[in-house]
Amino acid sequence: MKLCLNQATAMPYGLEETIRASAAAGIEHIGVWVEPVQEAGPAAVRRWLNDSGLTATSMSRVGFLTNKRGVELSAAYDAVRSALEMCAELSIPTLSFVAGGLPEHDRSIRNAEGRVRDAFETLLPDIVSSGVQVMLEPIHPLFVNDRSIITTVGQALRVIDGLPAEQVGVLVDSWATFWDPEFEDSVARAGSQGRLSGYQINDFKLPLPAPNNMQSRLQPGDGVIDLVAMTRTMLEAGYTGPIEVEIFNDDIWAQPLDVILRQTVEAYDRVIVQNLVR
Amino acid sequence: MKLCLNQATAMPYGLEETIRASAAAGIEHIGVWVEPVQEAGPAAVRRWLNDSGLTATSMSRVGFLTNKRGVELSAAYDAVRSALEMCAELSIPTLSFVAGGLPEHDRSIRNAEGRVRDAFETLLPDIVSSGVQVMLEPIHPLFVNDRSIITTVGQALRVIDGLPAEQVGVLVDSWATFWDPEFEDSVARAGSQGRLSGYQINDFKLPLPAPNNMQSRLQPGDGVIDLVAMTRTMLEAGYTGPIEVEIFNDDIWAQPLDVILRQTVEAYDRVIVQNLVR
Repeated sequence: MKLCLNQATAMPYGLEETIRASAAAGIEHIGVWVEPVQEAGPAAVRRWLNDSGLTATSMSRVGFLTNKRGVELSAAYDAVRSALEMCAELSIPTLSFVAGGLPEHDRSIRNAEGRVRDAFETLLPDIVSSGVQVMLEPIHPLFVNDRSIITTVGQALRVIDGLPAEQVGVLVDSWATFWDPEFEDSVARAGSQGRLSGYQINDFKLPLPAPNNMQSRLQPGDGVIDLVAMTRTMLEAGYTGPIEVEIFNDDIWAQPLDVILRQTVEAYDRVIVQNLVR
Repeated sequence: MKLCLNQATAMPYGLEETIRASAAAGIEHIGVWVEPVQEAGPAAVRRWLNDSGLTATSMSRVGFLTNKRGVELSAAYDAVRSALEMCAELSIPTLSFVAGGLPEHDRSIRNAEGRVRDAFETLLPDIVSSGVQVMLEPIHPLFVNDRSIITTVGQALRVIDGLPAEQVGVLVDSWATFWDPEFEDSVARAGSQGRLSGYQINDFKLPLPAPNNMQSRLQPGDGVIDLVAMTRTMLEAGYTGPIEVEIFNDDIWAQPLDVILRQTVEAYDRVIVQNLVR
């Protein structure tokens, strides 16, 4: 098991700075975001990674297309292709994909699932030629209308059923899925299909803050999620990739970068390493 | 289809007052809560109902026992028995049951499902002799840890599988379940089993307010839920009972009782009656 810092956990800081500080904090893997890589250019990011010794193991995120049509939908498809190219240039093996919410004119989740399926089928040649695995990510049901009509691992598997597993997998996020009564069964099925492509941890506690209900993810161990049991389920299902810590939280972001990274390493050590060392 | 006012929609007002004002507003059915009935005594409540011509069609709510043990669990069982008796005395056909959250010492949802099942099996003789149908109510995944480990209609059906449908059914609440990708299939299955016992409507919109994320239910039509499609699904699955409007919302509660009731009747008419008249 290896800790990966998702860049979102240190969102206010620049990518170069985050890469350098992560290496100094003993972190060996990073999950980068599309926009900062685009802004700096893949060549610069490759240099930063090489200089630091860090490996980029995932890129976040594309998609958000179930509520789009026409030129907006074409732009979303192009954004996927562009991210795939950046992943290929940086040898990043996985790219996360968030489905998108429901348009006002058609609130049928099943219809929206069809649009996700269409997107994967249309983009499959680009995905294949990039060598990248795209990870469909279920998001918490709270955001079904504006972020993701995909809310469970089982639903994600249904939507990508039959597509080649090497190219299309599932990203499991603890905050998004810990409530799911079918979690164990769905993760086992994903594992048996070779679709367990990524795993992000963070913690959940009520109440969620307003007005941005999403900015409430906590460091592992600071909330109510049984991360030991979840991680065990992932490992038993055959997951062998890095464990990404991905947190959205204004209070955490308000801290100095090195403090955020130290807390992340400590939380990972306390919750994951100390309970799951084999 | 008949509108039923769940008492929670006018929570700050007394039961007698709410019954009288509901009748004046042209509402014919009410869903009462356990505590006010207990406080006034069933005899007084029966008199109020008779005087007004209102019919009580449901009682809310018992359960909250998955995180309890010992004397606390016994007290929760006794509360169910007491509520069943009150329902029987008032000829109220249905009683809603909320599972409860996860105890800190055991965060396994499957184990907690077993405790819900145990409760229904233990209480079945009391349920049978009361003649009341107990409705297991899925609650939004947001509250899986502190309110209900049951978050989907499909999960509720699994937990009560094999128990007699006349005694044990499911209560479908729109705010709690509209996100569920298996909603249509699960509701159809519930209908075919004769377990569609109750239906509550209200509406959902982000952001949820803090610190009480639950106090954010809106009048039907004021949020993002496709209540016409949901209601059609319920009707097609064979649901013939009343449609309860149940809202928790501090802003709505701050209004005079007659305003709340008028808004409720208008919202029901606009969203349900005008779109689903046969």
